[in-house]
Amino acid sequence: MFPVVAVDLGGTNIRAALFPSDQPKPAHSQRVLTRAEEGPAAVVRRVIETVEALQLGDTAGLRMGVAAPGPLDPAQGVVFGAPNLPGWDRVPLRDLLARHFGCPVLLGNDCNLATLGEWRHGAGQGVRHLVYLAIGTGIGGGAIIDERLLLGAHGLAAEFGHMLVDPSAPLCGCGQHGHLESLASGPAIGRRMAELLAELTGAETRGEAYSASQVGQAASGGDPIALRVIEDAGTIIGKHLASLVHAFDPERIVLGGGVSRLGEMILEPIRDAFAAALMHPAYRDRVTIAAAALGDDAGLIGAMLLARET
Amino acid sequence: MFPVVAVDLGGTNIRAALFPSDQPKPAHSQRVLTRAEEGPAAVVRRVIETVEALQLGDTAGLRMGVAAPGPLDPAQGVVFGAPNLPGWDRVPLRDLLARHFGCPVLLGNDCNLATLGEWRHGAGQGVRHLVYLAIGTGIGGGAIIDERLLLGAHGLAAEFGHMLVDPSAPLCGCGQHGHLESLASGPAIGRRMAELLAELTGAETRGEAYSASQVGQAASGGDPIALRVIEDAGTIIGKHLASLVHAFDPERIVLGGGVSRLGEMILEPIRDAFAAALMHPAYRDRVTIAAAALGDDAGLIGAMLLARET
Repeated sequence: MFPVVAVDLGGTNIRAALFPSDQPKPAHSQRVLTRAEEGPAAVVRRVIETVEALQLGDTAGLRMGVAAPGPLDPAQGVVFGAPNLPGWDRVPLRDLLARHFGCPVLLGNDCNLATLGEWRHGAGQGVRHLVYLAIGTGIGGGAIIDERLLLGAHGLAAEFGHMLVDPSAPLCGCGQHGHLESLASGPAIGRRMAELLAELTGAETRGEAYSASQVGQAASGGDPIALRVIEDAGTIIGKHLASLVHAFDPERIVLGGGVSRLGEMILEPIRDAFAAALMHPAYRDRVTIAAAALGDDAGLIGAMLLARET
Repeated sequence: MFPVVAVDLGGTNIRAALFPSDQPKPAHSQRVLTRAEEGPAAVVRRVIETVEALQLGDTAGLRMGVAAPGPLDPAQGVVFGAPNLPGWDRVPLRDLLARHFGCPVLLGNDCNLATLGEWRHGAGQGVRHLVYLAIGTGIGGGAIIDERLLLGAHGLAAEFGHMLVDPSAPLCGCGQHGHLESLASGPAIGRRMAELLAELTGAETRGEAYSASQVGQAASGGDPIALRVIEDAGTIIGKHLASLVHAFDPERIVLGGGVSRLGEMILEPIRDAFAAALMHPAYRDRVTIAAAALGDDAGLIGAMLLARET
C-alpha cells in the first residue's frame, strides 16, 4: 500500500503526518504554528518545511492529501481565501505542493474532510447518510449522502454555519446577517457573554473578549449568565440541526469542534431543541446525535482518505 | 419499451396518464377532483377509477409510478399523511395499487418527483447539481446531487420549506415556528395581505382569506400593499435560496409552484435578495435561477421517470 502524507492547514496550526496504510495511525507527525499573519508565501513555505520534517525516506508511490479552510476549489486545487488565512486570494496550493514534492496532491475543504474522517474512522461509522457540524471559531459542515461526500458542483457545498436562521442575528464573519455562525460559534458565545454582563452592569461593552471555554468554565461554576448563553447557543444549534434533518434526512449527526467539547451543558439544549423542532414524528427515532470521536485529527485523517481514495 | 401509468395524487386533483415511452408526452390522461375530505379509502378508490378510465388495453410489462404528498416512505410505499390529505396515517398506497393492478408500483414524494421531471425534461436539463423549490399552497423541494435524486436515509429529505429562517415567523402548517413556508407560501402571502390591510384600517383581521393570485392581481394594478407583501415574500425566498446554495452548491435553482408563476414581480426580489445574500463571490455567476418549465405536469412526468428508471 502506498504511503500518504496528510496535511491539515488551519488558521492556528499546520499539521502534517505520514500514514503508511489506510488506518488512522500515523507513522510520524509534525505540528507548527501557522503564523497566518505572515501571509500566503510564508505559510506555504512553512507547510513544505513541516512535510519535509517528517523525514519521509523512500517515497515511491507517495501521494499527498491537504485539508484547508474553505471556500476552495478542490477540482482546481485553489484556496480562495478565508477569514483566518489573511491575504490568501486564489492560491494554487495543490500545484505548488505537487511541483515541490513531485507527487500527486489532492486538496479538500477541512470540514468536508473531517466529515470523511469521522464517517470512516470516527463517530459516523456504519451509516450511509451523515450530517457533520463543526462548531468552533467558525461553524462548518459536511455531509455524506448515500456513502458519498457532498461536494456540490464546485466543491463549495455544506457551509452549514452560513445559513439564515434569524434575521436579527449579529453580522457574521462572512459579511452576511442572520447566520448560525454569528449566534453559536465560539467567538459568538464569548461576545454574547460580554454583552449580557455589560447590560447587567449598565456598562458600555468595551470589546472585552471571552473565549467559549471561559464561558464554559463560568457555567460549570454555576454562573447563571454563562449557563444562559450556552443554553441559547445550544438551542439555536438544535433548531438548525432539525432544519438540516428536514433537508438531508441523515441517520446520524456528528458534532465536532471546540464548542461541542463543552459537553452536556451544550449537548443537552442541542438535543432538546432538536427533538422539539422536528416537523413530523417520521423523523424522530430515525436519527441520532453523536459527539465527534477523532478530535483535532478528523481533518488530517480525512485528508489521508482523500489522497488514498481519489 | 414498456408502458408506464403515472399518477399524481394532490390535495385538489388526482391526475393519471399513460406514457408509452420515456418522452413526456402521454397517450391518454385523466384528471378528477381528489375530494380529500372523504378520507383515504374514498381517495384510493378514486385513484383506481382514474387509472382505469385511461382504458389501458394491453398492459404487458406495465409499471406504475405514483407521486404523493410527503412525508412518505418510498422504500415501504407508505404515505404517512399530509395536511392536505386529512385522515391519511401510514396508508400502504403502493401495495394497495400493486395488488389491484397486478403490476409493479413505485411511490415517491411529489416534490422530489417534480425535481426529477424538471431535471430530465424541464428547466433543469443539462446540469449535474440542481435545487428545486416549489412555492404553492405549501413549500416543498428537491435536489439532484451529482445526477442523483436526493432521498435521504428514509426518503424524507429536501423539505426546504420547513427550515428555520426567522424565529418570529407565524406558526407553520407543520406545527413548528419560523419556517419559510409560514412566510412565503400562497396562504402566507394572502394572510399577510389581510393583516397589513387590517393594520391600516385599524380593523380586526376577520380571518379574511386572500389567495396569492388575488394579491398578485392587486400588485399588477399597482396596489402598494400587495406589492410590498409580494416583495417581502420574494426577499425571504431569495435569502433562503442563498442558504440552500451554501448547503448544496448547485449549478441551477428551479422555481416551481403557483406562487412562482406571479412572474417578475416576485422573481425580481427573489433574485436581488439571493445575489445579495451569497456569502462569497465564488458562488456568484456559478448558479442560475430558472422558472420551472413543466408546470403542473412536473410531478406526473417525474412519476413516469421513477417507474421507468427504478
